[in-house]
Amino acid sequence: MIKAIIFDLDNTLVDFMLLKRAAVDAAIYAMIDAGLNVSYEKAKEMINSIYDAEGIEYQQVFDRMLKEILGRVDYKVMSAGIVSYRKAREAALKPYPLVLPTLIELMKMGLKLAVVSDAPSKEAWLRLSYINFQHFFDVVITYDETRERKPSPVPFNMALKELDLRADECLMIGDWAERDMVGAKSVGMKTVFARYGDTFNTVNPESDYDINSVSEIVDIVKKENKIKN
Amino acid sequence: MIKAIIFDLDNTLVDFMLLKRAAVDAAIYAMIDAGLNVSYEKAKEMINSIYDAEGIEYQQVFDRMLKEILGRVDYKVMSAGIVSYRKAREAALKPYPLVLPTLIELMKMGLKLAVVSDAPSKEAWLRLSYINFQHFFDVVITYDETRERKPSPVPFNMALKELDLRADECLMIGDWAERDMVGAKSVGMKTVFARYGDTFNTVNPESDYDINSVSEIVDIVKKENKIKN
Repeated sequence: MIKAIIFDLDNTLVDFMLLKRAAVDAAIYAMIDAGLNVSYEKAKEMINSIYDAEGIEYQQVFDRMLKEILGRVDYKVMSAGIVSYRKAREAALKPYPLVLPTLIELMKMGLKLAVVSDAPSKEAWLRLSYINFQHFFDVVITYDETRERKPSPVPFNMALKELDLRADECLMIGDWAERDMVGAKSVGMKTVFARYGDTFNTVNPESDYDINSVSEIVDIVKKENKIKN
Repeated sequence: MIKAIIFDLDNTLVDFMLLKRAAVDAAIYAMIDAGLNVSYEKAKEMINSIYDAEGIEYQQVFDRMLKEILGRVDYKVMSAGIVSYRKAREAALKPYPLVLPTLIELMKMGLKLAVVSDAPSKEAWLRLSYINFQHFFDVVITYDETRERKPSPVPFNMALKELDLRADECLMIGDWAERDMVGAKSVGMKTVFARYGDTFNTVNPESDYDINSVSEIVDIVKKENKIKN
């Protein structure tokens, strides 16, 4: 009997790569507009390599780029970049289609909802709050709670403990096969691969289910729980 | 002959107290909504006393308040506060009425424009960028450039040097008599008191001019430069 759905956050509930690309592009154009003498391509390459080195949540990416280009932080340029980044991020930060009605449907079916994310607490909660999702989840586990990343069993087991459920009572849904599917399966959960969020063109995610829209979870739960439509 | 107008930023170009109040109020309501067990009045009092101790630009004000109330940072609560703070700040961050047409008119008259602000560089430039003012000013002096606050003559003299003008060729406009008027006068500038931004109910600002709308600067310049209407 499935009693809870556990979601990955980025690229499962929200299209994180889209918002990051939109925000970074807007920031680059604004910094060039504010007087930075660099090509779009060069700036994009520098920013991507800083994110590769420091992680995608790194907050000082523009400071770092400006120091590399100018030898100092030009606050006019950086602020133009930050403001455009924030505006574009807010505009692009949306749940995938049908996420909200699906969460509501799952709640009405009596299921608990949880998030297990490798993002830092503050950034994960900021994203949830921006889309007004901060009240939907019974349990939210982020990197700061465990200091272990998926596929480690630690965050999954912490979610189970806080949900007060067994692994076979939970469905894990995520876009990253090696982290979300492998980790959830290792503790005994059933797994749902969010193909719509997959950016690696994964051929075989080795999940129990493979979905193209988050709304398919409802039917999966009905099937698992032998509920007739 | 007046050749440049030097503006204070907060409460002269933008209504900073309004935006701060709007942003903090929105944040408090959001944190209570996210589960923080505190009254609006108590939260407001704690936030004001943190700002009094650390300065109005202090960025960790919600972290600090949550640590005082809960003994730890609750990221769900803090993120709800930050998101609401940012949205309300962006909505409330506007130039005063007639600032934009006045800046354009002054530029068309051939005047240079400058800002001398005690705010930190990043925050000053962020506010200018949010309202799309980042291109209007020939010179922007913030606290980071001089590490001296008005009424020290240092930031005023730096502005003069970068403008390449003498003090008697500049008009300083600001809302804070003891800082903006006293400091500008001490280096020999003519002064304009922005009464519309004054929150102290100053009786005698000891300025050369006293205005209720920023648009009055145009006539002051015409009078000073003996231009007929």
